[in-house]
Amino acid sequence: MESNVLTANVSATQSVLTPEQLLKHWQGHRDLTRRTIEKFPADKLFSYSIGGMRPFSVLAMEVLGIASAGVHGFATNGEWKTMAELLEHTGATNPTTKEELLQLWDIVTEQIDDYWPRIASEDFQRPMKAFGRYEGTVISLLLYFIDNEIHHRGQGFVYLRSLDIEPPFFWDRH
Amino acid sequence: MESNVLTANVSATQSVLTPEQLLKHWQGHRDLTRRTIEKFPADKLFSYSIGGMRPFSVLAMEVLGIASAGVHGFATNGEWKTMAELLEHTGATNPTTKEELLQLWDIVTEQIDDYWPRIASEDFQRPMKAFGRYEGTVISLLLYFIDNEIHHRGQGFVYLRSLDIEPPFFWDRH
Repeated sequence: MESNVLTANVSATQSVLTPEQLLKHWQGHRDLTRRTIEKFPADKLFSYSIGGMRPFSVLAMEVLGIASAGVHGFATNGEWKTMAELLEHTGATNPTTKEELLQLWDIVTEQIDDYWPRIASEDFQRPMKAFGRYEGTVISLLLYFIDNEIHHRGQGFVYLRSLDIEPPFFWDRH
Repeated sequence: MESNVLTANVSATQSVLTPEQLLKHWQGHRDLTRRTIEKFPADKLFSYSIGGMRPFSVLAMEVLGIASAGVHGFATNGEWKTMAELLEHTGATNPTTKEELLQLWDIVTEQIDDYWPRIASEDFQRPMKAFGRYEGTVISLLLYFIDNEIHHRGQGFVYLRSLDIEPPFFWDRH
């Protein structure tokens, strides 16, 4: 028993990052992306782009689809379903307005909070094939998902600036 | 002794992310940013922007300054010097051409590899005031640095697209 206590202490101390910190990090980024969506004029959200890129609504839907399917896949140790399948019962998976997109965003926020506790500390280094296709570990794939969101949100910031709209502060996370 | 062995095993298994993985993650992102710089026509790198934003060379210099000062600050447990001070001896800290910027990039890449082993696993959860100003822990600040790079690189991708230049693949890390 004493060795278990020691183990737990050392593990907590030496962990570069805990699951709780990673969830907070992810949801903090997601909150910033949500506030980026809010800054877009309703029509521009679904139509405006630069250099032939996708409108921000489409980038946001990509980010949502990855988050929803991803957290489910991790929590079930590799059962891959699409966001449309997972959230069909909500009737919210095909947003056509800014309000509907924000509503879907909030549903996925709850979904992540619900599934997260099912991913144990020791699961993060487990090999996983995301969406049945992309090989990695839970942690490498999850960091990829977050990075992809930051990447696309940075692009949304340029769209906003070119529309003469001030984006949220990058450092402001809730 | 046996309890130490157990401890080490459990800690390694339960670690969400190891220092080695985090270094590889960071340097993989930095390599992608380097290849983004390479894609810019030499003049556009220092002049082109959208919506009143900074040219990509200026964003890259911000990212470099944070990385250089940051890894030094972490490795010395809170001694904050600027990149100009740390790398003055190289004569490379004021790049005015694409080649010079890439040269400085490579110097900082080596600097990170050199300093990284001085940051122990247990240091990542240590409170730290980055640049003597921004409160966090080593891990929260480091993730912020990486996120800031991803954010600005995403903006560079829009600059490139609007110049009709294909950016590198986001998923391609070396």
